[in-house]
Amino acid sequence: MNDNVVHVGLVGFGTVGTGVAKLILEQGDAICSKTGFRLNLACVVDLDLETPRSVTLPEGILTDDIQVLLADERIEIAVVLIGGTEYARTLQLDLLRAGKHVVTANKALLAEHGAELYQVARQMKRCIAFEASCAGGIPIISALRTGLAANDIQGIFGIVNGTCNYILSNMSLRGTGFSETLAQAQEKGYAEADPTLDINGGDSTHKLAIMGSLAFGVEITLNDIYREGIENISIDDIRYGQELGYCLKLLAIGQKTTEGKISLRVHPAFILNDCALARVDGPFNAVSVFGHAVGEVMFYGRGAGMMPTASAVVADVIDVATGNACRTFEHTRILPKTEAGDRIEPMDDCVCRFYIRVMAKDHPGVMATCTRILADHEISISGALQHEAKSPHACVPVVMTTHETQEKNMRGALKDLTDSEVITGQPRCIRIVDIPEDREA
Amino acid sequence: MNDNVVHVGLVGFGTVGTGVAKLILEQGDAICSKTGFRLNLACVVDLDLETPRSVTLPEGILTDDIQVLLADERIEIAVVLIGGTEYARTLQLDLLRAGKHVVTANKALLAEHGAELYQVARQMKRCIAFEASCAGGIPIISALRTGLAANDIQGIFGIVNGTCNYILSNMSLRGTGFSETLAQAQEKGYAEADPTLDINGGDSTHKLAIMGSLAFGVEITLNDIYREGIENISIDDIRYGQELGYCLKLLAIGQKTTEGKISLRVHPAFILNDCALARVDGPFNAVSVFGHAVGEVMFYGRGAGMMPTASAVVADVIDVATGNACRTFEHTRILPKTEAGDRIEPMDDCVCRFYIRVMAKDHPGVMATCTRILADHEISISGALQHEAKSPHACVPVVMTTHETQEKNMRGALKDLTDSEVITGQPRCIRIVDIPEDREA
Repeated sequence: MNDNVVHVGLVGFGTVGTGVAKLILEQGDAICSKTGFRLNLACVVDLDLETPRSVTLPEGILTDDIQVLLADERIEIAVVLIGGTEYARTLQLDLLRAGKHVVTANKALLAEHGAELYQVARQMKRCIAFEASCAGGIPIISALRTGLAANDIQGIFGIVNGTCNYILSNMSLRGTGFSETLAQAQEKGYAEADPTLDINGGDSTHKLAIMGSLAFGVEITLNDIYREGIENISIDDIRYGQELGYCLKLLAIGQKTTEGKISLRVHPAFILNDCALARVDGPFNAVSVFGHAVGEVMFYGRGAGMMPTASAVVADVIDVATGNACRTFEHTRILPKTEAGDRIEPMDDCVCRFYIRVMAKDHPGVMATCTRILADHEISISGALQHEAKSPHACVPVVMTTHETQEKNMRGALKDLTDSEVITGQPRCIRIVDIPEDREA
Repeated sequence: MNDNVVHVGLVGFGTVGTGVAKLILEQGDAICSKTGFRLNLACVVDLDLETPRSVTLPEGILTDDIQVLLADERIEIAVVLIGGTEYARTLQLDLLRAGKHVVTANKALLAEHGAELYQVARQMKRCIAFEASCAGGIPIISALRTGLAANDIQGIFGIVNGTCNYILSNMSLRGTGFSETLAQAQEKGYAEADPTLDINGGDSTHKLAIMGSLAFGVEITLNDIYREGIENISIDDIRYGQELGYCLKLLAIGQKTTEGKISLRVHPAFILNDCALARVDGPFNAVSVFGHAVGEVMFYGRGAGMMPTASAVVADVIDVATGNACRTFEHTRILPKTEAGDRIEPMDDCVCRFYIRVMAKDHPGVMATCTRILADHEISISGALQHEAKSPHACVPVVMTTHETQEKNMRGALKDLTDSEVITGQPRCIRIVDIPEDREA
């Protein structure tokens, strides 16, 4: 068989880079017999030439000089697995201008500089493939672009950050506090030494920007997405939520509103225990997509890690090699926001249900005062929970859940609650998200 | 914008055909703004020109004459939504020879005549796209071919027949018997008037043949797949299984064995209540795929119905229109079985755990006899359940679960149990399938 050889260059020989090298080297025959072409790992670039990795590269292909890769005209596909957005941006532009297709997992880069990079790629008639940028090994980008292409997407609800999900799952399961659980996640390798971008929701925001652009066909910038992390989640609220039948997840939500706007937000959310996303535990990711024709489709798998992410990267490499990625890239049009008008719903208008906890002082009429404040802001209560105080004069937590109301009403109410004399400290407030049900028709 | 127009012909204006026409007509603008080309429904062929459908076709495109479609040179893509395998085969060959790409949902046809059809398509440089043939709106074919292409697929575990899943879910939930539940499923439209092909596992077998060929890269014929339906499932066994922590599903299983063979089977299976597939209820489908790199990836959604199936069909139409489907079709090589050697594991060698129920006569030493028979066939027991008899001389059900053993051992044991004097009637036997766990690494 006279197989075609497709030469691949790799920039970034860290965890995922090592996985990609492994897959290309070890699955070469299998990929060849499935597709008819052979991937040749022609060049690997990394500043660190010393640290041993769990794969043996062919002699002479590892270098710390990016020019070697840029100048190698055999190389059609460059896999870029470096973080950050400054050098990574310059590098991807250089690679595209050198006529190479780019495969990347760098969600921050695409979320911040995607428009510029896509434009240069189009000018150069090259493509950027980024399946690995969202939800690791789960082929969600491909599903949004092709498998669900006939649908008007009504909503996306994703658990797309494994670190946060690991922390929240373990807090729920073991009853441990945030800091202790984070430390344990770091120990097990599920959280970075500096976990800021994960736990503040930044990483999920990057992924939502990418998935949302594809799902809704409009340009989405990070400023369009409301963001709230899990840093301030108290184990008490997870427990009270559990008593009420809820489970806490960090959700990335993109949703068409009844007014035709798009609501985009990343925040901790109580979801009902019996919905599918509630059962996504530990480092796993899942994305539920609601299409007007297909109904709910859910994708579940590992959202990070060496081999799951490498699986998505190499799938992209194969897709570029067949030529499909380029056609998909050419045909997938993201409309600039200006063309679509101002379609992003301001967070103030966002309609949600809420969980609120206040610490009530030992006063008569606390519940009356709290419910009055909520009523003044046109918020009606759907449930309440108050345990008896352990000692006569202790503060007691009063938990209330509300019917749907606009974010701005809740902000007003929270301010008034804080100012009220019957409670102590800041009220805690967590949104309750009712994932639409796609049940028997 | 000077958009390209892609002309589409549709054969079969039934339920799914109507959905396809709706999507093409109603989503035309959205598809055009996303992809840059406009789908034009140029011709719809059906023998029934009278029955009103829930979509209004443009004047003059409905005909009962297939020659109109075949002769229309504008039509590049023919969507074939008719059942059966005889006329459907001839028609697809005619369409391919007339130079048209074919999009189909007919799994029986592909499972039985796929090799011939694919060959003719290749000769004609046309493609056959069949996302809708498996699991309705879930993009599982695309995932197996592209999203997971870098993986050595270790196993597929699918709930791919909505009728069976609806019946088994409802039997479990309501405690109703098979016939009563089937009648109710027919009433609600979840089972056909003649449900044979669904309940005997035939439909799942067709789908497994298609998915398995793609996952394992070998030609799979229906004879390679062991098949057992749900017709003889008793509500009693579902109940005893529930007591033991299991849930009953009709599974389509493709699995690489430790000996490098491929085990292919469709049968009712007890799976643990806490695994993800156990929570797939009613008419929903789900497929868990285990890749050596990606780990477990699960896809969940509606496996049938007008709009979910139409969603998959129109996704294929778009994929053909971009040119991607043809490249994928060209690059996806299925190795003929002869090349791969005889890789299909005979069912006799299949290793499984088992649930067995016998009706024990009022004798001393029943359990001793049963366990002795199992031991004689080298089967060891992992659990047992025997409720006290309601009256002194009544038969009592004795339930046993086993550790792993080969199918042939169990067949021998079942024969001996049947012949034994301490039990009455036939022993009931249901396989227990332990879905591999992809938990925290």
